[in-house]
Amino acid sequence: MAVKRMGQQTIILPNKPAILAGAAWVGPKEGKGPLGSLFDHVTEDESYGQQSFELAERQMVLDAARAAIRKAGVREGDIRFLLGGDLLNQIISASFAARELALPFLGLYGACSTMCEALCLGSMLLDGEYADHVLCTASSHFCTAERQYRYPLEYGNQRTPTAQWTVTGAGAAVLSLSPGKTPMARITHACVGRVVDLGVTDANNMGAAMAPAAADTLLALFEDTHTAPRDYDLIVTGDLGRVGRNLLLELMNSQGTPLIEDRCLDCGLLIYSPEQDCHAGGSGCGCSAVVLNACLLPQLQEGKLGRILFMSTGALMSPTSSLQGESIPGVAHAVVLESPKAERNTRHDF
Amino acid sequence: MAVKRMGQQTIILPNKPAILAGAAWVGPKEGKGPLGSLFDHVTEDESYGQQSFELAERQMVLDAARAAIRKAGVREGDIRFLLGGDLLNQIISASFAARELALPFLGLYGACSTMCEALCLGSMLLDGEYADHVLCTASSHFCTAERQYRYPLEYGNQRTPTAQWTVTGAGAAVLSLSPGKTPMARITHACVGRVVDLGVTDANNMGAAMAPAAADTLLALFEDTHTAPRDYDLIVTGDLGRVGRNLLLELMNSQGTPLIEDRCLDCGLLIYSPEQDCHAGGSGCGCSAVVLNACLLPQLQEGKLGRILFMSTGALMSPTSSLQGESIPGVAHAVVLESPKAERNTRHDF
Repeated sequence: MAVKRMGQQTIILPNKPAILAGAAWVGPKEGKGPLGSLFDHVTEDESYGQQSFELAERQMVLDAARAAIRKAGVREGDIRFLLGGDLLNQIISASFAARELALPFLGLYGACSTMCEALCLGSMLLDGEYADHVLCTASSHFCTAERQYRYPLEYGNQRTPTAQWTVTGAGAAVLSLSPGKTPMARITHACVGRVVDLGVTDANNMGAAMAPAAADTLLALFEDTHTAPRDYDLIVTGDLGRVGRNLLLELMNSQGTPLIEDRCLDCGLLIYSPEQDCHAGGSGCGCSAVVLNACLLPQLQEGKLGRILFMSTGALMSPTSSLQGESIPGVAHAVVLESPKAERNTRHDF
Repeated sequence: MAVKRMGQQTIILPNKPAILAGAAWVGPKEGKGPLGSLFDHVTEDESYGQQSFELAERQMVLDAARAAIRKAGVREGDIRFLLGGDLLNQIISASFAARELALPFLGLYGACSTMCEALCLGSMLLDGEYADHVLCTASSHFCTAERQYRYPLEYGNQRTPTAQWTVTGAGAAVLSLSPGKTPMARITHACVGRVVDLGVTDANNMGAAMAPAAADTLLALFEDTHTAPRDYDLIVTGDLGRVGRNLLLELMNSQGTPLIEDRCLDCGLLIYSPEQDCHAGGSGCGCSAVVLNACLLPQLQEGKLGRILFMSTGALMSPTSSLQGESIPGVAHAVVLESPKAERNTRHDF
């Protein structure tokens, strides 16, 4: 068997599942960032008309999911699996959104790697013909994450230069096996990452904790598929931020597979401008989810990008594990996305 | 397409993925219960030689996983995906165990439905030929769960009669597409559940919160597969407990699909004896995981059971959602397991 597997870790998807449509809902800070005009919806404030930030995050998931379904031209009942997760304990944003959608629900936890975990699983379920349409979601919210992982906002705590800013945002994508119209992109390969931990213990430096996992997955994918960094118009990481991205470049250099710096972008660095005072960049499940859906997929659809490697990265610690002195394990999942129009293109908007 | 799908929710698995081996690690209370002699390992105390209960739970996952791999006669490197989860925030038991195993890791959160969520996904990934071996794990620990969801143990809080006792235990199963030896069981169908919430708000009555989801999944599976309760030697639910099981029987009656009472068992009622003072029964991801691996799989392997419907149930609330006044959504995932020896058999050990 194993005709659908290349090497140790990479899955080849002969049916090339399509991403039919994506939607991205973000908060006001993200709306003021460099990608602000691309998002489907920018909320007026962080509460989005709800009584708690948790309810606001859930509502953003729900609205993004329904928008993606609408844009895909399918009905809610056509979706066979909802694969989703978020950063909150017991992934309540995804679970409670799933309650409203009433779709078969597969809850995921991959920290900030969740969007790609959902794409990896969703694309295999489609490629294997277990579904004709699946919905993938991921979300995060600055205010819910701060309360849960750090301090109540009211404390006004200082942030270190390595700290990242949790993106308030929800991304949703509808994947399909048999698209009736031109897809935004096709998923040709999926690479599920291993948990890697080089001993970083600073919970204010997630980028450093995730970079080794990012390198591990990239090296596996390159080796398995006999490709190199030059074979991709872009390599887009999830939320390594400035510190993590630099470490990834260093790690890949030291492994003899240097990345091409100006073709290696990070969603956490794309979403905010330096003037927005977000230190090392954006983070959170929502970060790569909204950048993928609002910024990368449209450029793939138009042929401005031909083939990209999209990889979300996650830090798998909890406040409890950190209090108990544990270091921070990282994980990174990747998919290869192809434009329906062009095989290769570097005339993208970056 | 959709040749691998029956009706709305049920997946038919033409390759019938095999469960090669399972292992179950439990705590002392579970060891003293009616199934005590069946478990692979009963720990001497709840700390299992570790410095925290969280480390103990993680070690149990790891030991159960390695035992399952050994019993399956494969090497760790043969496992293509580790699918696992637990009840702890950010699923640290599964994630940190995955760090030690260094396998491609797909983190799941389905509360107490996690074992079946892993089996559903794992069996599709195998059936679709994306892997030759996968490892599915789920765990819970009384002391870590009490601290996180309820009160520190030192408070000695009173429990209501509807309360369930979180099982200290970790279950692991190795699934395979091409078994070299006789499997313990084969997975013929998988049914991923929808999130159902009938408005139960009592966090001490999880059984009631999960019963509607259990009924929803059972009804979907029966309708999709044109089967009825009589077509299964046993229908085994995860951890509905006494209250939830009675509600499920009532709900199924009211829907015109009555279950056969003495062929409808619940892992939460099997694992403790009434003398163990566990009120409505056992619960936790570990509950259905250890009962499946230690008690059900061997009887399927020996042909004492021919075909069973195994369904784990989960309550998807968090302490935060409960504090915010939310009701408790439930979810239930099911698989149909067939013996390699007998098509039907009711001479089982119950």
